Amino acid sequence: MKSDIILLGHGSGGKLSHQLLDDLIIPALSGVAQSDQNDSAILAHDGGRLAYTTDSYVVDPIFFPGGNIGDLAINGTVNDLAMAGARPLAISVGLILEEGLAIAELQTVLQSMKEAAEKAGARIVTGDTKVVPRGKGDKIFINTSGIGVFDHELDIRGSGARVGDKVLINGTIGDHGMAVLASREGLDLQSDIRSDSAALGTLTAALLEAHGEAVHVLRDPTRGGVATTLKEIARQSQAEITLDEAQLPVNEAVGGACAILGLDPLFVANEGKMLAVVAPEAAEAALETMRRHPEGCEAAIIGEVTGAADGKVRMRTAIGGMRAIEMLAGEQLPRIC
Amino acid sequence: MKSDIILLGHGSGGKLSHQLLDDLIIPALSGVAQSDQNDSAILAHDGGRLAYTTDSYVVDPIFFPGGNIGDLAINGTVNDLAMAGARPLAISVGLILEEGLAIAELQTVLQSMKEAAEKAGARIVTGDTKVVPRGKGDKIFINTSGIGVFDHELDIRGSGARVGDKVLINGTIGDHGMAVLASREGLDLQSDIRSDSAALGTLTAALLEAHGEAVHVLRDPTRGGVATTLKEIARQSQAEITLDEAQLPVNEAVGGACAILGLDPLFVANEGKMLAVVAPEAAEAALETMRRHPEGCEAAIIGEVTGAADGKVRMRTAIGGMRAIEMLAGEQLPRIC
Repeated sequence: MKSDIILLGHGSGGKLSHQLLDDLIIPALSGVAQSDQNDSAILAHDGGRLAYTTDSYVVDPIFFPGGNIGDLAINGTVNDLAMAGARPLAISVGLILEEGLAIAELQTVLQSMKEAAEKAGARIVTGDTKVVPRGKGDKIFINTSGIGVFDHELDIRGSGARVGDKVLINGTIGDHGMAVLASREGLDLQSDIRSDSAALGTLTAALLEAHGEAVHVLRDPTRGGVATTLKEIARQSQAEITLDEAQLPVNEAVGGACAILGLDPLFVANEGKMLAVVAPEAAEAALETMRRHPEGCEAAIIGEVTGAADGKVRMRTAIGGMRAIEMLAGEQLPRIC
Repeated sequence: MKSDIILLGHGSGGKLSHQLLDDLIIPALSGVAQSDQNDSAILAHDGGRLAYTTDSYVVDPIFFPGGNIGDLAINGTVNDLAMAGARPLAISVGLILEEGLAIAELQTVLQSMKEAAEKAGARIVTGDTKVVPRGKGDKIFINTSGIGVFDHELDIRGSGARVGDKVLINGTIGDHGMAVLASREGLDLQSDIRSDSAALGTLTAALLEAHGEAVHVLRDPTRGGVATTLKEIARQSQAEITLDEAQLPVNEAVGGACAILGLDPLFVANEGKMLAVVAPEAAEAALETMRRHPEGCEAAIIGEVTGAADGKVRMRTAIGGMRAIEMLAGEQLPRIC
């Protein structure tokens, strides 16, 4: 470790987060190899498989356009299961409340959790509530974990990308991060910037049902954005991925706000988006499957796996140049989820 | 809800916690009836059963005599599974770190988690790390969730106590709470007050293997202590439980410290203790099974189920009187786990 204390950037999802995980946390706790690090762990049980995942949510503010910390916490965990190709069997909820939190705010958050769970077909079955004194927390932190089950035998993981595969995304990028940032800083941006917080379980199920083994990788580009997630996939698959900037779907207001603030939407968090790496012969059909789904109307093919390499990601820019893409360095937007 | 903001007492594990859960959180999220609220949820899966539980740990200070927040978080979740009669299949870890936390402290905590998991035969398989700015957290909060599997068909739950059953405990009460309190307040109490933080999975397995259906209820008296946990059992089982004060095992230093500070060890948290409600004909043998186990040398029979009633707990005092026991009211010791 280069620092002897925890920095905000260790929570970015980018370079520093990966260092903390790779150099300290994963070796200390489990020793899972980088190539096996996925959104969910896969457990062998009773001749079958279970998916298992956990996430804590510390987003600030807890309410933002398009959602709040409650639906975010449910959708995020449902999505981590979905990216393994699993559907949720059960969800747990751990609440850490700050003394002084308004009961009315808590009530709204809980209501959103319930609605999000119902919409995603997930059942909240167990929970825990702790309270910390004023100034030792920040309103509400939520941990959700989830158990997922499989309706198929497919093995979806970050190491599955092959040369020639196409990279798809189900819609516009950067919406969640910009909605939270604008809301936190009180920026008067265009009113149509809203978080994309959504559960993607039915979309992944539709993709897997229609295209089966042609679907090689599924992953949701949350903290660190599309750039960081593609970098993870490229590393795990020992591949080179080339993005096509002109194909990246970006909401106009989000693009404008990013330009004003000097942010790159490629590194901004999403909470209702997924990347799918799909065999070339199935890519167009998979795009159609996405577009027919409510969470995929603006889906696009944004790149392809262009070679075998040690985790290289590059982007053909709109003006025809080629730019190397690295993981998010430092902390662009703290506490985005 | 009587208050319109969250109070510290809502995290006590006692009366206010139960109000918050019963009036707001459980109806909002899951609607599980009080009689079905146990340390773990039981899920039907593939013709079998899974146990599932979650807990967040916010103990202050994070290091205390006998343990730290890391082993506490592992042992607590292993124990919640054990109280359902399950053994851990997998554990998840969610870390919320405060900016500025020393990496060396984090390292020590992680090391303790690993050792505790190995000792309990539990595998940490998935995790998440978030960072919050200075003053928005407190060093480290840990959520652990756990999936448990069953090696038997027994149905262990809080509603299982029957008239005539004996109440057993595996050792002295109040050690964890007093160790944390002394450490937090810098009290110079006797040096032999140490947290009892320990995993109880092999002890519950030994009890169930030896005494099977005679074991009616297992529960760990954590926040709110033995009094609050017995009150929960009495309510769920629609029973009256009578404790015998003279039989309660209390470490002398803990008893002395409680007396000085005006605390009742019956309400002080434990992290390596379990209550077992056992059929009368098996009680003596179950006591022997406990005493042969390293975590049960000081086990005792401390009471019995004396009638059918709506959740009454009373105690025959050392001087021969009878005293009603209620749940912990307010917040005796905040952030004990």
